[in-house]
Amino acid sequence: MRTICLLVEYDGTQFSGWQVQRGASNLSTVQGVIEATLERMIGSRVRVRAASRTDAGVHARGQVVAFENPRETIGLRGFERGLTSLLPPSVVVRHASEVENGFDPRRASRGKRYRYTFWNASTPSALDRDRSWFEPRTLDREAMREGAARLLGTHDFEAFRSAGCQARHAVRTMYQIDVTEGEYSRVYVDVLGNAFVRNMVRIIVGNLRDVGLGAKTPGDLEAILEARDRRQGGMTAPPHGLCLEEVIFDDRLPPRPHDDSDLTLDEEVVVSKA
Amino acid sequence: MRTICLLVEYDGTQFSGWQVQRGASNLSTVQGVIEATLERMIGSRVRVRAASRTDAGVHARGQVVAFENPRETIGLRGFERGLTSLLPPSVVVRHASEVENGFDPRRASRGKRYRYTFWNASTPSALDRDRSWFEPRTLDREAMREGAARLLGTHDFEAFRSAGCQARHAVRTMYQIDVTEGEYSRVYVDVLGNAFVRNMVRIIVGNLRDVGLGAKTPGDLEAILEARDRRQGGMTAPPHGLCLEEVIFDDRLPPRPHDDSDLTLDEEVVVSKA
Repeated sequence: MRTICLLVEYDGTQFSGWQVQRGASNLSTVQGVIEATLERMIGSRVRVRAASRTDAGVHARGQVVAFENPRETIGLRGFERGLTSLLPPSVVVRHASEVENGFDPRRASRGKRYRYTFWNASTPSALDRDRSWFEPRTLDREAMREGAARLLGTHDFEAFRSAGCQARHAVRTMYQIDVTEGEYSRVYVDVLGNAFVRNMVRIIVGNLRDVGLGAKTPGDLEAILEARDRRQGGMTAPPHGLCLEEVIFDDRLPPRPHDDSDLTLDEEVVVSKA
Repeated sequence: MRTICLLVEYDGTQFSGWQVQRGASNLSTVQGVIEATLERMIGSRVRVRAASRTDAGVHARGQVVAFENPRETIGLRGFERGLTSLLPPSVVVRHASEVENGFDPRRASRGKRYRYTFWNASTPSALDRDRSWFEPRTLDREAMREGAARLLGTHDFEAFRSAGCQARHAVRTMYQIDVTEGEYSRVYVDVLGNAFVRNMVRIIVGNLRDVGLGAKTPGDLEAILEARDRRQGGMTAPPHGLCLEEVIFDDRLPPRPHDDSDLTLDEEVVVSKA
């Protein structure tokens, strides 16, 4: 039985997040749609594993998904073009490859890159409304860059994780946080880290917005980090501005520490049983 | 009674185009939604005039709309913020201003800029699916630029208008046609002209795609232009890649010729009466 790996793009707008939620079968999730479509193709139940359990409304251009393929007659092209043609247009398979047996994208990943998009103009955007967070006051990009610099490196991001997070600890490494201007009135925050605790990117972005508006100084972010207290960590940016851009497996990044027990629970979603 | 001018952005995906279609009141149009919302605000029937009658699926970041305001108590801020808050999120008023009495954006305009977006990658895009035309074969941008250059200046664009067009003639001036690369796998065709016959931008783009794929040479476009025969003009690009970016009224462009009788019918939509 071969293990297949898919690079997947999705528009998270209409989905209740990545993960199938037991006892909530009425919710449409990306994982649920992919598993149901694979079952139609293959003829038997398939369980997929993803690199990131994105929340409701969060998008992905580079989600990585793996599963065991019991039907050797279906080739990589079938999982690329064929699967895409059976999926709703909001989910696209960008690439399919064969990987080592039992490959788990989340454990194997060395890092992930997320992009958060602001719409920084005096009025909201009709065309970008499901892809960005509207901020009518001018964001000071330079102050945001200075704030972002304080978060680089390995820290305990306890103040940057949401209450529901079940990871054993919040020590993570941020390799890069860039604040750049995109087309039209878009401002991007690109975050590259080895792994993330729950809502970490959105809480970082919520804080960087405060810095961009002058409500916090770059130094405040360092103080929040050191205080390890979520209550000081500022608001969580809304999900629809967030996109998982890339999962990195190769030697562009160092391997993650072997102390991975917590990472199994990294970003775990707590679901209420029916 | 003051004339109010609005700068409007909309996501055309869910609309049956700009124009209210008589005898087809079940269709949702951008004009219809704006007029109904103004009526709720003002308390009486309002008729609006726009710079461009965009087709179903076509978007706008810079549509210009004018109307007479019988309620002097509602100020410009009311038409900016207030109107936006009453409109569906797919329509946004970016700016409101007072203009000379009877101002007609279509007659007053000196030119319009449209952007057409290709998604030029081996697989379609989930996130850009309603904003771009998927082309899996690599587009030769340089050849497209050479083709575009053949269309610049004042020509009879008879071969570049659709059958339903009621304009008296197709003589138009193209000031600029740029082919550039955007973020991700986007390729833009930006067209700036004094006015356009029906489907002209989309037919230009359909032909430039042929050039980009090597099916036509840049010289072929000149021959098509000279032949003035729609049957040689190639396919019409789909609407969802098109966006009205800007309507130009100021002296960045020269005034249009006074022979404007045809322009009243420019882009007129033929509707079947119920």
